Amino acid sequence: MLKLYGYFRSSAAYRIRIVLNLKGLAYEQSSIHLRRGEQFKPAYRALNPLARVPTLIDGERVLNQSLAIAEYVEERWPEPPLLPGDAAGRARVRALALIVACDIHPIQNTSVLAYIETAHGFDEPAKTRWAQHWIAGGFDAIETMLARDPTTETYCHGERPTVADAFLIPQVANARRFALDLTPYPTIVRIDAACRALAPFAAAATESQPDAA
Amino acid sequence: MLKLYGYFRSSAAYRIRIVLNLKGLAYEQSSIHLRRGEQFKPAYRALNPLARVPTLIDGERVLNQSLAIAEYVEERWPEPPLLPGDAAGRARVRALALIVACDIHPIQNTSVLAYIETAHGFDEPAKTRWAQHWIAGGFDAIETMLARDPTTETYCHGERPTVADAFLIPQVANARRFALDLTPYPTIVRIDAACRALAPFAAAATESQPDAA
Repeated sequence: MLKLYGYFRSSAAYRIRIVLNLKGLAYEQSSIHLRRGEQFKPAYRALNPLARVPTLIDGERVLNQSLAIAEYVEERWPEPPLLPGDAAGRARVRALALIVACDIHPIQNTSVLAYIETAHGFDEPAKTRWAQHWIAGGFDAIETMLARDPTTETYCHGERPTVADAFLIPQVANARRFALDLTPYPTIVRIDAACRALAPFAAAATESQPDAA
Repeated sequence: MLKLYGYFRSSAAYRIRIVLNLKGLAYEQSSIHLRRGEQFKPAYRALNPLARVPTLIDGERVLNQSLAIAEYVEERWPEPPLLPGDAAGRARVRALALIVACDIHPIQNTSVLAYIETAHGFDEPAKTRWAQHWIAGGFDAIETMLARDPTTETYCHGERPTVADAFLIPQVANARRFALDLTPYPTIVRIDAACRALAPFAAAATESQPDAA
């Protein structure tokens, strides 16, 4: 069986829980408690040298980085497809996912927030403002890209969830955790509600995880 | 003809210059001067709502986000391949590229450095230490992943350059710009030298660009 190393509140692990659920794949979960620093233990670092979650184990294969994992899952279990059938559509879905994966999440994640606190003395309100700033900047772009394009329908790209939705919805959860005002993002909010009504998204949510504290 | 909006010193644009050169594709370049804020002009933001480079134009198609662009180019012009032929190899190459694209570059890029200066008063030495910290953390992981795996040969994955090399070499250029000590990264340094000896990489380098100041 597939094994997913994750953490209930990691939005990168949440993406892969959604992907695996959408594919209907069974997987065992192993919790790496990021707040207690379990990601830095040598046994886990052997699986994930960057000391991040998620890591997916498929037999002998050890897979790192959420978008690489999503692409692997898509290639190995093509149904139902989580990328569009056309090259331009795939590029659009990947670009939406990458805005989350590159331009929002890494700047507001646990490691950067811990670093600005310990090395630069940011207090909790300053850390919250920092996270809000970077999420808002990325969401401004995503909202524009979604609202102007007719390929945005119930979901980010058409009438079926794609990798773009699997990456966006965990980031919306982070935005709520940092109390970001979502009023400027009506398309994101609408798609978030549509996705969260689906069982594969609901089962993947932070609060649905066995390790949720 | 393909048109690439970039900037000589943008490592994300540099990745796509390498990819297009490796594919032997001709392309017109348009410089978006990031230091002068040209990325925020409405005409460019219509092409790239996040106000970043690169953007690739292929006929009517407007493509954002460097890894999405690289995947698009790989699908549209498969030869020579820049991803391995097997799913596990593709996952490894994508994971290496994503450590650069997600976990290193966004945290040390122009927008974050400008923000920590203007909003938080970081001076030049503090900005340099910030950039060094995040590049070193990512390079520690990449060096481990490269050094321990027999699929690392002349290049990151085998005897031909892949997307992993196209992403790594621009990040090494950034590391040198921030005066990071590369002694702990002998495998990265060796692969960097091998790549930079190739014409497609040399022609893509920062200092080879017409807009290099």
